[in-house]
Amino acid sequence: MFNGMKRTAMRQRTAAMAAGLLVGLGGAAYSVAADAPSMGDLQVKYRQAMYTVMAGNFAPLGAMAAGKAPFDAKEAQKRADRVAFVSNMLNEGFPPGSDKGKGTRAKPEIWTNRAEFDRLMQDLQKQTAALAAAAKTGDEAKFKPAAAAAGKACKTCHDKFKTED
Amino acid sequence: MFNGMKRTAMRQRTAAMAAGLLVGLGGAAYSVAADAPSMGDLQVKYRQAMYTVMAGNFAPLGAMAAGKAPFDAKEAQKRADRVAFVSNMLNEGFPPGSDKGKGTRAKPEIWTNRAEFDRLMQDLQKQTAALAAAAKTGDEAKFKPAAAAAGKACKTCHDKFKTED
Repeated sequence: MFNGMKRTAMRQRTAAMAAGLLVGLGGAAYSVAADAPSMGDLQVKYRQAMYTVMAGNFAPLGAMAAGKAPFDAKEAQKRADRVAFVSNMLNEGFPPGSDKGKGTRAKPEIWTNRAEFDRLMQDLQKQTAALAAAAKTGDEAKFKPAAAAAGKACKTCHDKFKTED
Repeated sequence: MFNGMKRTAMRQRTAAMAAGLLVGLGGAAYSVAADAPSMGDLQVKYRQAMYTVMAGNFAPLGAMAAGKAPFDAKEAQKRADRVAFVSNMLNEGFPPGSDKGKGTRAKPEIWTNRAEFDRLMQDLQKQTAALAAAAKTGDEAKFKPAAAAAGKACKTCHDKFKTED
């Protein structure tokens, strides 16, 4: 009974999310057009946007960790908070069907080897939380290894589940 | 003296951010290519990604507020927290020079009438914070007007500063 209700609620949420994505990501503009983007296309667009936001905020952290930019405690904390926050949103970037969207570089193995993908995602979330905590101390000596570990978590998953640039 | 130091620190941060964007957003892959994206292109990509993440999370809220999806307190809170968080990142999406990037639909008036743009941005941030607070109560009657007000803040700025789809 509870499971049935839960499934119904999940279906309703999924439907709302789908409708939301279509409207929110510009699908409405294409609704009667022949070149309408598929649901997969919109899901890929949303997924890639999350990763672009991740990259744009992780990059300054990486530069500081590598000594290519001076350490700025306030900046590090701001960027690390964002990276940690967005990393917790990524799980929903890979729904069933979004393996086929336009421009995706996500490998099919994400959907066929989900347990391993989920494990790497959880590791990323753990490392970015640790990075945010390290950045909050304002201590460069704590920040640097935490940023390196988070960067490694990104790379480990990209190496395994993302097609090369 | 302090201002001079502050300017130097700002320049260093800006340089780090620029380098970061180039690396983080794929610029490295193009570094010797003739079709290298400009800094403006990368800034536009980052800006649009933030708005795509906003849209993907605001849309389900809009659907619930309009009665097109059943109210789900937990879902509303999660989405509202994200919308509030990302709305506080948007300010940095419009640096000087990013009025010219590839695919932008940002009107030039953002850069020529910045005070008005900043005022609307602050209003968005205020409304999304209020929405997150309303969603946290779990009370649909508090949630709905707050979501409508946040949606209106989005639309007011789009109408004034964004080229039509």
